[in-house]
Amino acid sequence: MTLRFALLGAGRIGKVHARAVGSNPQASLVAVADAFEKAATDLASAYGAEVRSIEAIEKAGDIDAVVICTPTDTHADLIERFAKAGKAIFCEKPIHLDAKRVEKCLAVVDKAKATLMVGFNRRFDPHFAAVRKAIDDGAIGTVEMVTITSRDPGPPPLDYISRSGGIFRDMTIHDFDMARFLLGEEPVAVSAHASVLVDKKIGEAGDFDSVSVILETASGKQCIISNSRRATYGYDQRIEVHGSRGMVAAENQRPVSIELANDKGYTRPPLHDFFMTRYIDAYANEIAAFITAVTSGKKAAPSGKDGLVALELADAALKSAKSGKTVRLDKAS
Amino acid sequence: MTLRFALLGAGRIGKVHARAVGSNPQASLVAVADAFEKAATDLASAYGAEVRSIEAIEKAGDIDAVVICTPTDTHADLIERFAKAGKAIFCEKPIHLDAKRVEKCLAVVDKAKATLMVGFNRRFDPHFAAVRKAIDDGAIGTVEMVTITSRDPGPPPLDYISRSGGIFRDMTIHDFDMARFLLGEEPVAVSAHASVLVDKKIGEAGDFDSVSVILETASGKQCIISNSRRATYGYDQRIEVHGSRGMVAAENQRPVSIELANDKGYTRPPLHDFFMTRYIDAYANEIAAFITAVTSGKKAAPSGKDGLVALELADAALKSAKSGKTVRLDKAS
Amino acid sequence: MTLRFALLGAGRIGKVHARAVGSNPQASLVAVADAFEKAATDLASAYGAEVRSIEAIEKAGDIDAVVICTPTDTHADLIERFAKAGKAIFCEKPIHLDAKRVEKCLAVVDKAKATLMVGFNRRFDPHFAAVRKAIDDGAIGTVEMVTITSRDPGPPPLDYISRSGGIFRDMTIHDFDMARFLLGEEPVAVSAHASVLVDKKIGEAGDFDSVSVILETASGKQCIISNSRRATYGYDQRIEVHGSRGMVAAENQRPVSIELANDKGYTRPPLHDFFMTRYIDAYANEIAAFITAVTSGKKAAPSGKDGLVALELADAALKSAKSGKTVRLDKAS
Amino acid sequence: MTLRFALLGAGRIGKVHARAVGSNPQASLVAVADAFEKAATDLASAYGAEVRSIEAIEKAGDIDAVVICTPTDTHADLIERFAKAGKAIFCEKPIHLDAKRVEKCLAVVDKAKATLMVGFNRRFDPHFAAVRKAIDDGAIGTVEMVTITSRDPGPPPLDYISRSGGIFRDMTIHDFDMARFLLGEEPVAVSAHASVLVDKKIGEAGDFDSVSVILETASGKQCIISNSRRATYGYDQRIEVHGSRGMVAAENQRPVSIELANDKGYTRPPLHDFFMTRYIDAYANEIAAFITAVTSGKKAAPSGKDGLVALELADAALKSAKSGKTVRLDKAS
Repeated sequence: MTLRFALLGAGRIGKVHARAVGSNPQASLVAVADAFEKAATDLASAYGAEVRSIEAIEKAGDIDAVVICTPTDTHADLIERFAKAGKAIFCEKPIHLDAKRVEKCLAVVDKAKATLMVGFNRRFDPHFAAVRKAIDDGAIGTVEMVTITSRDPGPPPLDYISRSGGIFRDMTIHDFDMARFLLGEEPVAVSAHASVLVDKKIGEAGDFDSVSVILETASGKQCIISNSRRATYGYDQRIEVHGSRGMVAAENQRPVSIELANDKGYTRPPLHDFFMTRYIDAYANEIAAFITAVTSGKKAAPSGKDGLVALELADAALKSAKSGKTVRLDKAS
Repeated sequence: MTLRFALLGAGRIGKVHARAVGSNPQASLVAVADAFEKAATDLASAYGAEVRSIEAIEKAGDIDAVVICTPTDTHADLIERFAKAGKAIFCEKPIHLDAKRVEKCLAVVDKAKATLMVGFNRRFDPHFAAVRKAIDDGAIGTVEMVTITSRDPGPPPLDYISRSGGIFRDMTIHDFDMARFLLGEEPVAVSAHASVLVDKKIGEAGDFDSVSVILETASGKQCIISNSRRATYGYDQRIEVHGSRGMVAAENQRPVSIELANDKGYTRPPLHDFFMTRYIDAYANEIAAFITAVTSGKKAAPSGKDGLVALELADAALKSAKSGKTVRLDKAS
Repeated sequence: MTLRFALLGAGRIGKVHARAVGSNPQASLVAVADAFEKAATDLASAYGAEVRSIEAIEKAGDIDAVVICTPTDTHADLIERFAKAGKAIFCEKPIHLDAKRVEKCLAVVDKAKATLMVGFNRRFDPHFAAVRKAIDDGAIGTVEMVTITSRDPGPPPLDYISRSGGIFRDMTIHDFDMARFLLGEEPVAVSAHASVLVDKKIGEAGDFDSVSVILETASGKQCIISNSRRATYGYDQRIEVHGSRGMVAAENQRPVSIELANDKGYTRPPLHDFFMTRYIDAYANEIAAFITAVTSGKKAAPSGKDGLVALELADAALKSAKSGKTVRLDKAS
Repeated sequence: MTLRFALLGAGRIGKVHARAVGSNPQASLVAVADAFEKAATDLASAYGAEVRSIEAIEKAGDIDAVVICTPTDTHADLIERFAKAGKAIFCEKPIHLDAKRVEKCLAVVDKAKATLMVGFNRRFDPHFAAVRKAIDDGAIGTVEMVTITSRDPGPPPLDYISRSGGIFRDMTIHDFDMARFLLGEEPVAVSAHASVLVDKKIGEAGDFDSVSVILETASGKQCIISNSRRATYGYDQRIEVHGSRGMVAAENQRPVSIELANDKGYTRPPLHDFFMTRYIDAYANEIAAFITAVTSGKKAAPSGKDGLVALELADAALKSAKSGKTVRLDKAS
């Protein structure tokens, strides 16, 4: 069986998903919609798809699933529309920047019994997935402490930052999802510190660029997250899980893995400089998992609920950073 | 411009090249030929190509280039036929196991002014290519000593070995090509030792499974090659180039790069266990280079001559291993 | 000039310092004191020193400096006695578990104009010192975020824990000193989480075995500390400093650095399993630095004040872990 | 029991051995002899030893063992003298540059039933010893192929080279001993290539600076050795042993093991730049092993015979490099 896709949003991340759909033998890209007609046309023609309006896709009988890559503030509305239209939905994170709006959206999805998967791509990275598998295999015993280091090569444009919901909701949210993925238990307490060290303009825009977070679960498991909007050596993405019987870690990936030795020492090239090349396999595996979920009828993961909880952790972290208090999630809800 | 391909031979390596052609935006796979009709049909249908006979491909007006993946003993004949037919030719190594036959074949190619590229895929591995680039950039000064370690996860079937021309012509030949690629100067002397350490049956079939080779160029640059038909830890493929100002090396690649630490120590998973997964990028880059050569009119490399010289080094190594003497190539010719 | 030492306390850490003094060409070990006479006699005879009482050492004309390795609750008293006696003092950390008592002790030291150095040995590890030097050399620009991972192979005996002052004052205190050493700016805010994950009896004794701490300086620099009383793979001691222009890190040290590859993967042996073998060079360098300070008249570092500030950070971390609030040190004092 | 030593030769390597003796609790350095009186006096006074003549040491009742660190051409004579004088003998390699003279010397040692150990320090490096132990433990199955990479930071003075016996007898001889140590079977065939790539003056002095060697044992095990008199990145000393069930390797050691990451990539400092710092532990372990052999009455290893066989391999390699033929040792003897 081939799953027939429509892609909503032909921008940067839309292209990534188009490629993932296009190269998956169990999928075909049937339609592309974008407010900018040229973007839609270019992407559609590259994959032998048609340009269609969102309305046309909503009504189409030859579309099984949609991939939502439009601007963030349209996600919740589109999810609701396509849930009602009976399509399976893959939506880029976040569903919405407001947790209340997310809850309302998920209620609609539930009522429609629609399949919804949220784009936390890192779970599908082969190396991070292998860490999860090692935990599941009992290789490190009981998980005790998770360490996540996540640094971008450089800050995004200021106008992006002003629309992003802030570093916790835009960047750390991926790490909150990874923390839950690796801890295997819900965090109930969050302490966060946040500074402006990279660019003062980020601070003037009301955001931070450097954050440290501690999460704690009910049983006392801990997770540390370190974020920076700057890393001169590339896209720094590491996870480490410490348990009662050992530790498992995934190191950074490099596009070229040679080493040069001379009188200055031993030098390896920098890391990937862009999340799309770093996570190219993850994006392909993510769409494949979505297809499997839809065609097998299994529950899609990460779910809308996963998206909501990660957002709640981001909200709690922001509140903690501003208040100087540990925020408890069990009491908050 | 799109280059229109026919694929001759739909076996294991044929499938690798079909994928490389099929996923290249500048290429289309038009036809597939194979003595086993089902193999041809399956592969053709997967890429929207037709099944055709070799004769039909020879005469076809809609075919620009052929990829030859048929059994070794047919390579030279097919190269000659398609050179005369005016097609650009990509041929898997080796052209023939007999250097005299290769010379004759190359004369036909020259006379036809045909484009011929030989499948030494390792030159196109991104990491090995980066080593070559570092040398070209002057990062290590003058090349002095090259070390190539190349070990297979396990020996091939005995019937393959009996048809292979022996380990030097089948396996070490890749390392001879890498040696020339990295030394930047022709080897003129070869010393080789060869043993049967992995499987006595390989010895009974008249071959070796473990070899060490030293190559030396006219200016005294040296290259060491170490081969084994066995490596429990995976497909071991390393190169190291030592020069007057430094050293550059490409380490092994791993499909999963996690590390597990416990009371036994720190453990990383084994290497790739198959040349096709290890060199998946190399095969894609190789076909891309062939397409660029054909469409731009530039000289294809590695050329038929490169194939011939690597074979002559293999012949010399075998002669050295059997005679206990260094074989000089400058005097031999 | 040779500095003449007396050693107070001939236990485990006393032996470490005896060796450091004994093998330093600028030092001689003249006397050893210990409540257990056999311990004193054994150690003294191994280094050609005499056994003396503390009183005798206090009055001795042939002793320039003392190394205090007695139980923690005697440190402050002994420091005061030997400061008044005109000896240079090297004291194992901590000076006292009560910050008020430390302050009073330091006032006595100041009044006596005595030289006092506190035993934060990690500053003298060659690798950690090289990290500090890289920072000083400008290699990473402005320091932004420090990450310290510090895990013991296993928990100490329960009776030790009950006398230790708790994990923050006993174990994390080393990391607080390293944080200050690396941040180059005083932490002003501390958030900590603490759990009992390793051994319930540690919790019953009123202590924790797993902690995560965030420190923040006035300018917003952050430091993360991760501690566990358990690490199956050995004594885990890592630091990483992220700055505006790069990152510098010191990885773990191993007593044996071979690697074994087989069908299970690539395995390196575990880390050092004991702080004394891990930090053997650090202890030697530490005593050498003390000798240099005394003989050159330069200020000894880490100073008594450094000991006090690390203790205050430990107190703040404990308060934060218990209260669920960030503790500010600028307001606290 | 304490072994009482005399040191013959107070030069560079003499100082290394004096320290090893001086810091060993089972040894005491009683006397030092050197043609240059000041060298003898300085070294003797640093260790509380006396300066004595060789004759006085020969007759002394308070000397159990001698360490011979005098110029190479005096080794065989001194060994014979002290064997007859009933002293245990540790002699720096080589015994003599002429194998015939070595044989004659060893006959004298045998007749005197003297203990003689030859200074192949690398066997005592903790990492190389751990490789040998892994082999003994069966970790890699049957040894098949050994790879030894050994490169000096830079060439020695030309006058040293002219007295050294050539690169095979001076430098590669260490690798020949390591090859025997790791192969566990005698090499019977040697093929070598030798060039002058580093400094033409070395060639004018009749020597080489870059060599590649293949050794083969009777059962077909192979060993590759790569030597250069130049390595800009430090003292390059690696071994790798490939077997039927796996591979074990010892990587290079570094004095400082930090890593700096920036926009140029990830850089670790260069290796040790001097054999004495690289092998400081090996020298201490070597003397300890000698002491154990003497005091326990066990056979000292490496023995005089080990010194002779390594020299014969060096002679064979030189002959092979010059003749272009594999030299067989079983036929040669």
